[in-house]
Amino acid sequence: MEAVEQGAEVRYTRADGLADALRGADALFVYDFLSTAVPGAWHAADRLRWLHIASAGVDPVLFDGLVRSEVALTNSRGVFDDSIAEYVLGVVLSFAKDFARSLDLQRESRWQHRETERIAGKRVLVVGTGPIGRSTARLLRAAGLDVSGAGRRARADDPDFGTVHDSAELTEYLPAFDYVVAVAPLTARTKDMFGARAFAAMKPTARFVNVGRGELVVTGDLVSALRSGDIAGAALDVFDTEPLPVDHPLWTMENVLLSPHMSGDVVGWRDTLVEVFAENFQRWREGEPLRNLVDKGLGYVPSAG
Amino acid sequence: MEAVEQGAEVRYTRADGLADALRGADALFVYDFLSTAVPGAWHAADRLRWLHIASAGVDPVLFDGLVRSEVALTNSRGVFDDSIAEYVLGVVLSFAKDFARSLDLQRESRWQHRETERIAGKRVLVVGTGPIGRSTARLLRAAGLDVSGAGRRARADDPDFGTVHDSAELTEYLPAFDYVVAVAPLTARTKDMFGARAFAAMKPTARFVNVGRGELVVTGDLVSALRSGDIAGAALDVFDTEPLPVDHPLWTMENVLLSPHMSGDVVGWRDTLVEVFAENFQRWREGEPLRNLVDKGLGYVPSAG
Repeated sequence: MEAVEQGAEVRYTRADGLADALRGADALFVYDFLSTAVPGAWHAADRLRWLHIASAGVDPVLFDGLVRSEVALTNSRGVFDDSIAEYVLGVVLSFAKDFARSLDLQRESRWQHRETERIAGKRVLVVGTGPIGRSTARLLRAAGLDVSGAGRRARADDPDFGTVHDSAELTEYLPAFDYVVAVAPLTARTKDMFGARAFAAMKPTARFVNVGRGELVVTGDLVSALRSGDIAGAALDVFDTEPLPVDHPLWTMENVLLSPHMSGDVVGWRDTLVEVFAENFQRWREGEPLRNLVDKGLGYVPSAG
Repeated sequence: MEAVEQGAEVRYTRADGLADALRGADALFVYDFLSTAVPGAWHAADRLRWLHIASAGVDPVLFDGLVRSEVALTNSRGVFDDSIAEYVLGVVLSFAKDFARSLDLQRESRWQHRETERIAGKRVLVVGTGPIGRSTARLLRAAGLDVSGAGRRARADDPDFGTVHDSAELTEYLPAFDYVVAVAPLTARTKDMFGARAFAAMKPTARFVNVGRGELVVTGDLVSALRSGDIAGAALDVFDTEPLPVDHPLWTMENVLLSPHMSGDVVGWRDTLVEVFAENFQRWREGEPLRNLVDKGLGYVPSAG
């Protein structure tokens, strides 16, 4: 933050001091992206022109007051793309090679041979065609999987996905896929898109991966689908309540791989997030257009294409 | 085996009936590659001309009697290449993304965020330049890792590895690598090649992966290296004693991922192994050259290149 401090008066605050700090501020950098403090302090935003958030998803700050305001919103697009792609490939391989069972058997010192699966040729649907989805598609394809996408606009010739299906018609094509990866931004359109109907449409052998937002999923329906065998497994890095409550049934379910919202957080990620802000701050000071400008109506940074 | 049965009298036997079955036989298909019964029954091989083994490594049948005989030896080269490559990529990702710790925490219903590692740009040494090593190199490279090889002949322009180092000089270049993958055949030259000196030469952050043969490694030295922090972790699918004894220290060590010699065994592998034999049997009957002919002096099928 040194570069920023040289060009501005910087106030650091926790959630409970946000209103005081916000008074008179021109820009707000929300470093704790899970913070829900912004709406409550919004009345104090008397001259705010820019809000930057240290995450790819902007859903935590997309409250009406900000959306209707003229405050520019930018995100940390790009920081997590390749890390999350690697994470997704890792959980796909964990399912195919039965790694969780190997570890459970190892913890009991038990030698038990099983057969495993190939990943090559398996069909993957990546739901979300932003930069994280694209990086995921490229890596999975490089590793031999057969990848398609789902997004707002169906098309046949996407450079990363080849075919992109219309995400409003999920159940029509879900039956074709071995892995379904949710990486869409959370918006009114995507909230609850994975519910009972979607899971019922998937193959009984399909695995569901969520690295987007917990609210893309109707969690109770996912639990039911896993219990009934509508789908074969799930790898979940995000949840509608975080941390996941200690008594939540997902913790103890077979064929579920959980991680605590860390799929993109490689060593150095905090520094990278500050760098992204500092770079945008430099542009802002010099009157250049901000990078990663969110369309507050859409809820994400629109792609060039 | 139906195709084979149409062209020959086929005797099926377990280890204890091998000598009786071998008397008068022209060909022997060793389907249980771990069987040590062949040397003990060798006196009964009164007209044997061909031995085919349902594995890539032929070390279990490379005893003096066979080596000095005129019996042709063929293996199941090719069956396991791509499956093992996927397995290796899987354990590399498991280390980088800390999946074992995630699963241990999950089993305790504990939410504990950690930072993870990228795999892109990490340096991997694949020791063994046969088809399994090549497939592994190609897949790891496709996933963004920086791959080199080690084999009998140093060279700079290998199509899969780029640089291949001389495997007799391991300790000279081991310090450069983040992951070291052992996938060499077990021969007099490769036995015990990973001992105290090799592990001491690796980075303290390096992970060792063995999908070749347990005897490539001095297991006691590996245990010591993991305990002392000479290396950061190991993923082991093969062991000098299989099954790994229940009281072996490897079972309970931190940063060790164990699996029971299954890295190549995808659904359908047993059928594939029989098909490979049946195809070679067809060639043998028709007097065509056998595929996958092992050089019994080298201990593996020599590459064309």
